[in-house]
Amino acid sequence: MNQLLKTLTYNEDGLIPAIAQQHDTGEVLMLAWMNAASIEETLQTGQVCYYSRSRQTLWRKGETSGQVQKLIDFRIDCDSDSLLLLVDQTGVACHTGRRSCFYTAIRDGEPTEIAAPLISSEDLYGHNHS
Amino acid sequence: MNQLLKTLTYNEDGLIPAIAQQHDTGEVLMLAWMNAASIEETLQTGQVCYYSRSRQTLWRKGETSGQVQKLIDFRIDCDSDSLLLLVDQTGVACHTGRRSCFYTAIRDGEPTEIAAPLISSEDLYGHNHS
Repeated sequence: MNQLLKTLTYNEDGLIPAIAQQHDTGEVLMLAWMNAASIEETLQTGQVCYYSRSRQTLWRKGETSGQVQKLIDFRIDCDSDSLLLLVDQTGVACHTGRRSCFYTAIRDGEPTEIAAPLISSEDLYGHNHS
Repeated sequence: MNQLLKTLTYNEDGLIPAIAQQHDTGEVLMLAWMNAASIEETLQTGQVCYYSRSRQTLWRKGETSGQVQKLIDFRIDCDSDSLLLLVDQTGVACHTGRRSCFYTAIRDGEPTEIAAPLISSEDLYGHNHS
């Protein structure tokens, strides 16, 4: 484990980008960041843990919303500077209530929403977690 | 176009991470970086152009190897700080000759190659481009 964590190339903030992909459908759900501690926790627990750049702390995906990601496979790219996590996503990955964060596409040169929320933010996070 | 380029959130180096995914199979091929100029060129030409951090210049994917990526769809995430490019990849995406850059998986706690090259680097880049 320690050997693995050392072979990865982190940026100047100690982070590495991680793509989360639904393992069976192939849908790309989100891109987030991990540090060595979050990678270690993810591999040990089998539940995906990122590093939140805005909150500057470990981000146990789904801890508040319940929309957890079970790790199915952990992959590393040829330069060891990005990760691909095959996951089983409970519910939605996006904080907007959409399955994927990539719900905006360019249509006729303009950003256009191509997916609607499946659940409201209120239902996702509740009144106690606003 | 200019409006779109301004709505994206770039890092301190003016870059944004871009995931390339084969549009029909769902295979995640690679993660690379784009700047505003490479995004503009990609949307105008329909051929994916990244920004090479090592060479510090525009990187027209496949210019040397012929392994180009035709842009099928351009997607932006909820924070506007990462991109998902649905592409049609000619040949292989990885400079090692593998279809995807994510050919290393953790097996029994150890990094393990799970895909072999489909073409040699020599055949990819030729003697004049070593």
